Amino acid sequence: MRAIRFAESLSYDAAYSEPHPGNGECVVRVHLAGICATDHHIVRGYMGFSGVLGHEMVGTVVEGSEAWIGKRVAGEINCVCRRCDLCQAGLSSHCRERTVMGIAGRDGCFADLVTLPERNLHEVPETISDEEAVFIEPLAAAYQVIQQVPIEPRTRIAVVGSGRLGLLIAQVLATTGCKLEVVGRNPKTLLFCEKKRIQSKSVDEVRLKNDRDVVVECTGSPKGMGIALAMVRPRGTVVLKSTYAGKGTGARRHEGTEGGEEGGGDGVDLAPMVVNEVTLLGSRCGPFSEAINALARRAVEVSSMVARVFPIERGLEAFEASADPANIKVLLKINPR
Amino acid sequence: MRAIRFAESLSYDAAYSEPHPGNGECVVRVHLAGICATDHHIVRGYMGFSGVLGHEMVGTVVEGSEAWIGKRVAGEINCVCRRCDLCQAGLSSHCRERTVMGIAGRDGCFADLVTLPERNLHEVPETISDEEAVFIEPLAAAYQVIQQVPIEPRTRIAVVGSGRLGLLIAQVLATTGCKLEVVGRNPKTLLFCEKKRIQSKSVDEVRLKNDRDVVVECTGSPKGMGIALAMVRPRGTVVLKSTYAGKGTGARRHEGTEGGEEGGGDGVDLAPMVVNEVTLLGSRCGPFSEAINALARRAVEVSSMVARVFPIERGLEAFEASADPANIKVLLKINPR
Repeated sequence: MRAIRFAESLSYDAAYSEPHPGNGECVVRVHLAGICATDHHIVRGYMGFSGVLGHEMVGTVVEGSEAWIGKRVAGEINCVCRRCDLCQAGLSSHCRERTVMGIAGRDGCFADLVTLPERNLHEVPETISDEEAVFIEPLAAAYQVIQQVPIEPRTRIAVVGSGRLGLLIAQVLATTGCKLEVVGRNPKTLLFCEKKRIQSKSVDEVRLKNDRDVVVECTGSPKGMGIALAMVRPRGTVVLKSTYAGKGTGARRHEGTEGGEEGGGDGVDLAPMVVNEVTLLGSRCGPFSEAINALARRAVEVSSMVARVFPIERGLEAFEASADPANIKVLLKINPR
Repeated sequence: MRAIRFAESLSYDAAYSEPHPGNGECVVRVHLAGICATDHHIVRGYMGFSGVLGHEMVGTVVEGSEAWIGKRVAGEINCVCRRCDLCQAGLSSHCRERTVMGIAGRDGCFADLVTLPERNLHEVPETISDEEAVFIEPLAAAYQVIQQVPIEPRTRIAVVGSGRLGLLIAQVLATTGCKLEVVGRNPKTLLFCEKKRIQSKSVDEVRLKNDRDVVVECTGSPKGMGIALAMVRPRGTVVLKSTYAGKGTGARRHEGTEGGEEGGGDGVDLAPMVVNEVTLLGSRCGPFSEAINALARRAVEVSSMVARVFPIERGLEAFEASADPANIKVLLKINPR
């Protein structure tokens, strides 16, 4: 089958071996897949992963249990053991033995076919197009923010970083009616906010006055974290959606987050968070059901984020295009629906 | 009056000018004062403070309103405006206009006399000795931990760092009956834990398995933070009691925390906290009333932490002694009770 794989370098393989589903697993024929910052990290050596990349997709089940065959699905990316202490404690997304589609120990969805455990699948309702459904995984990560922090209409909240994930999070936050501002660098993404009637500001003009109740950091850079800590009020909350590339220690697993586009081992000065008694919340994957529901009832609009769509054969070109921040989202077209 | 002051360098001044109390302020004749890591930071240039050092004390009110004269007191260190947005919002310990005794914009208590607003004073009950009362300020900071995080007997909790503040926090946590372990480097402080029947371990032997519900970081070093993030379980909580010296940005105010003894601008890699969805809580000053209550009912024992007591005239020598981690706490004897 066709696949975009990484092993020391990124390549297109027209004859990658087809996957063999394990017990309780389904094979999904992939329609569309999305390229994410984490994919770029992996290509820079992060996670030590080799194999087929990709963890955002929509496709049709072609093999597996009768009930699923023919269903159009999106898939949760953490494949878990259900036996370790964390699975037993209800924290299975943190399973100590987990593999992660296209990120750790398991091939991803930049291929004709991908396998996932049946219990990872979510059927996509007919009202959601493929081009929307491919956003379910990152949109779920965005919904995680409002599951972790109670947001009210009077909450003053800033999203630092107007990349793919920042714009999804901003849209999710906008649904709460809170006092929202997006802080970014890229005029194109700030224009996207304007169209959505979300207040936005260039990072150079933003007021750093420790006066926001909540700040969501999604730049992926220590500098962005510095801005977040200068914006959040004493006893406020910073939600950290970014990992910082460069300092590799400890970051064994790393999925569902916006990656460190400017990351480079600088690290973060945490003194202000102690002095101001800030709460910092690490935030990773999120609830697929919320994302599917939001797309189905049109609470969030994602189609206009798609800048370019490439056939899988031109996957390397697609990767290059997705490195340009002006292209908010780049997709791979793999199979017709 | 006699005072230990800092202005480019530390000096003993036998004829420092006596303080003039402002409106609503009292003058306290200091009996005993404690040297803390923050004092050492200031001497290294942190906060850009110059003036009399010292923010841990017990003394007797000698000037001010009738009701307070003759009372033995400890004093809260943040002197606030009560008018700014944060004071109005009930966050007065984060007052934007605050001065901080011996740390920012206000002389401290390493002197015969110190002034504080009347509303900062807490009377010390007769059952608490001077040598105990001088621990009220840091013990309050320790109590802040259990005010921020609910601790239950089944909670698995580690304190990383067995310095002054770490040992106070460990004692406070021990009162909850939780599953507690202190991780430190200094044999003398680990022996202190043993005497208190608190489980302790050398940092070189500790199990880094992401299996503690809560970790309190009080080493003041990015390395300690790395250990904390390797000990805390996914979705667990790290309470950050340390500021990290070296990276100066943003750390305008810095009080009531254990300082960065190994700090040096390294910064911290936060990727593991995103991947494991850890909650990080910055924690600074705490409730004086809890600390006074704990000392009065003997829930916490502090006297055996005192390694040496110097007269104020030998304050520079006392500073040197307090830089040695084997001396858990060093006090300055300033006036008889």
